[in-house]
Amino acid sequence: MPKLSVEWINPFIEATENIIGTVAMVKITRGKLTLKEDSAVEYDVSGIIGITGEAVGSIALSFPKKTALAIVTNFTGEEAMGIDNDTIDAIGELTNMVAGSAKKIFSDKGIKLKISIPNVVVGKNHTIVSPKGTPSIVIPFESDVGELAIQVSLKPGN
Amino acid sequence: MPKLSVEWINPFIEATENIIGTVAMVKITRGKLTLKEDSAVEYDVSGIIGITGEAVGSIALSFPKKTALAIVTNFTGEEAMGIDNDTIDAIGELTNMVAGSAKKIFSDKGIKLKISIPNVVVGKNHTIVSPKGTPSIVIPFESDVGELAIQVSLKPGN
Repeated sequence: MPKLSVEWINPFIEATENIIGTVAMVKITRGKLTLKEDSAVEYDVSGIIGITGEAVGSIALSFPKKTALAIVTNFTGEEAMGIDNDTIDAIGELTNMVAGSAKKIFSDKGIKLKISIPNVVVGKNHTIVSPKGTPSIVIPFESDVGELAIQVSLKPGN
Repeated sequence: MPKLSVEWINPFIEATENIIGTVAMVKITRGKLTLKEDSAVEYDVSGIIGITGEAVGSIALSFPKKTALAIVTNFTGEEAMGIDNDTIDAIGELTNMVAGSAKKIFSDKGIKLKISIPNVVVGKNHTIVSPKGTPSIVIPFESDVGELAIQVSLKPGN
């Protein structure tokens, strides 16, 4: 699979760290796992949003249930008891904020992207697979409330 | 939840029927279930693709494992034995073709949309939830090889 250069990955990492750090007050750090380009995570809740423009693809934020509940509780100020509608909405909103923040970082570099609307996938140990031929990378993060990951899939747009 | 008018839904229905009928040679027909705007399906494999432009959102094609394997077998001409990489690639490709066909139908009406790249979600009985405030509808289909559904979520773009 072709590589995604750091110039295309870093804005998503920066946006994820900033948004989760700011609005959910959870400090996350890049995980120590070796990055494997074909890796996938099997978590329980994912926010996923499409990207078009000068690059085309998607970003997904994936959480184990435990991490999702802790982050949503911090984000909304109400204790999240399960993967209910409120939790799902909050995960969608966080995904939207991360994608919007990354879009802004790209825009400041002169790269124009458009983002769609987040969907939230709920399902124990689901995986999200990007199409063959589209560079895709999973970036794991660690935090005091558990692990999470982002998955970025992007190829040149038109 | 606001309604999605038939003008916005029908091109996706037509595209799904045409593509699956043509490339997988499986005739699908609208299911008899009452449409509920808040409904969701719990299937095993979904192709999902983001949409931007004059409307923003996504389309997802969701399949029970049995239906996915039968349709992919017809599509590729090789018997699909499980939800492996080849099956996942084929579901992504079908999703891309359906979205591309719908885009063409909209384009012929003078409505410009862009589509991102499909991701395929794999997970037994997963659901895909659209954000609050974004009109979303699930359309069930039936066929000789089993049921499937599409989920369209769209709101005005910019």
